[in-house]
Amino acid sequence: MSDDPLASWNHGSTKATLLDFIARVTKEGTADFVPPEERIATFDNDGTLWPEQPMYIQFVFAFDRVKALVAEHPEWKTTQPFQAVLEGDMKALAAPGEKGLDEIIAATHSGMTTEQFNTIVADWLAITKDPRFKRVYTELVYQPMLELLAYLRANDFKTFIVSGAGQDFIRVFADQTYRVPPEQVVGSTSASQFQVWDAGPVLMKLPKIDSVDDGPGKPVAIDKFIGRRPIFAFGNSDGDKEMLEWTAAGVGLRFMGLVHHTDANREWAYDRKSDVGRLDKALDEANARGWTVVDMKGDWNVIFPPG
Amino acid sequence: MSDDPLASWNHGSTKATLLDFIARVTKEGTADFVPPEERIATFDNDGTLWPEQPMYIQFVFAFDRVKALVAEHPEWKTTQPFQAVLEGDMKALAAPGEKGLDEIIAATHSGMTTEQFNTIVADWLAITKDPRFKRVYTELVYQPMLELLAYLRANDFKTFIVSGAGQDFIRVFADQTYRVPPEQVVGSTSASQFQVWDAGPVLMKLPKIDSVDDGPGKPVAIDKFIGRRPIFAFGNSDGDKEMLEWTAAGVGLRFMGLVHHTDANREWAYDRKSDVGRLDKALDEANARGWTVVDMKGDWNVIFPPG
Repeated sequence: MSDDPLASWNHGSTKATLLDFIARVTKEGTADFVPPEERIATFDNDGTLWPEQPMYIQFVFAFDRVKALVAEHPEWKTTQPFQAVLEGDMKALAAPGEKGLDEIIAATHSGMTTEQFNTIVADWLAITKDPRFKRVYTELVYQPMLELLAYLRANDFKTFIVSGAGQDFIRVFADQTYRVPPEQVVGSTSASQFQVWDAGPVLMKLPKIDSVDDGPGKPVAIDKFIGRRPIFAFGNSDGDKEMLEWTAAGVGLRFMGLVHHTDANREWAYDRKSDVGRLDKALDEANARGWTVVDMKGDWNVIFPPG
Repeated sequence: MSDDPLASWNHGSTKATLLDFIARVTKEGTADFVPPEERIATFDNDGTLWPEQPMYIQFVFAFDRVKALVAEHPEWKTTQPFQAVLEGDMKALAAPGEKGLDEIIAATHSGMTTEQFNTIVADWLAITKDPRFKRVYTELVYQPMLELLAYLRANDFKTFIVSGAGQDFIRVFADQTYRVPPEQVVGSTSASQFQVWDAGPVLMKLPKIDSVDDGPGKPVAIDKFIGRRPIFAFGNSDGDKEMLEWTAAGVGLRFMGLVHHTDANREWAYDRKSDVGRLDKALDEANARGWTVVDMKGDWNVIFPPG
């Protein structure tokens, strides 16, 4: 064990900026001091706390569910976008764009109670391994970010996840994996309905997307779910741009960070041209405004926790 | 000062039930023990933490806004439901039911940024007095409930407000008044939009109700915003019935409470026939299932904090 709370971060300007920010906002009696209740830190999830290549992990889950449920839905064999999933036809799957994926999410994330859904996700996460890294996804989280989350909390920050992925999906593992409790996980939401069964009341998940927590939807969701402006925000893609802008626009010292995936050997390397997690406009803005850009290859001496 | 954490509660079965519940779920090594992170307590606001008679306080605010804004909206003088507000014609106002009130809320709670709205509400709360009690509304909160909130928090409960009123409205005063921070205030929500102005990004409030946190909407909102089932819930009307049912249906010891307004001298007396805060079906269910019903007149030795 090291005394360094950010041991997986190499010494350099990124680490220095983080440590300096946290030291300054927690030092009482100074102009930069922020009272604990205002120390709100928001983190994107996919690509910021865990990988998102070659595909968002929630889509891997949804595709596995399509395969598991096809016996109950034989019509999926000849209906798009389900047929494309079953046949592994990524081109046909991509053809309708977001709409097709939304349809798959809606179909696989509804028709059960919230508690049944949580069990399905937990069971899947317990056994499904990433094909490249041969580890379950909850072990494939960025060790440097786990240290940063813990260090922020040790300094009385309240850490939130603000993700474009499904809030229901992330909440199943966020508490154990990141120590972020369900009430601090904000994500895209789908509708549910209160029903009273013989055995008691349940919440049934409906095949209807309620709100999309991405891009300009992130500040909206932050306001709705948190009701305070973050002083610290971390993302990795253009979908995080507005969250960082919203954070930057507050009064006083702020931290805005982006993870730049630059390490094809240990993880992945992608940015301006990637379909998944594209980092283009937000990278320009970060450079222009002096936001912190993490060079994964140079700034992190470890990517994942030891196996 | 008293050593009794619930000094404003008279000795009797209601107080004993509360103290016993809190003692049991916090006693480690027993079957009833609940770990701190699961100690979720939800409170309705109108009629549970502050009065709702003769009219919800948010409506008093909205009507004052109609009067303040009519110079900018001369058409309101001859357009319902605004004309009814301006003329004090409660009968015409009630005619369209919820729809008319929704329209007034939408019109008076939109067209400004979130920060502008917060300032308008704070300014109004600072000077507007209840006509009967001659005090500002944030002083007209139930002292016994303030003590209960504080005692729950002292026992590592996380206290939430789950209200049918506007989340935006309640958040302005909940932190100072109840020590419930914005991220723990759940209520009905309206839509907002991220816009980038010359001066920077803002969230514009739109005239569109997003979700209604009442009746069966309360468990839905609890799941969406909190993501855990409460072990303790307090309401006062039929709009809280499903929240209490949802709380009751969890595993282990639970507390379900209703405030019964029985004190016309010190506050108000109403239940089964009231248009505002009707308590009818939920009272039957409380009686049938042994939920705790607070008799305001007999259980509380003080209603409001000393002036």
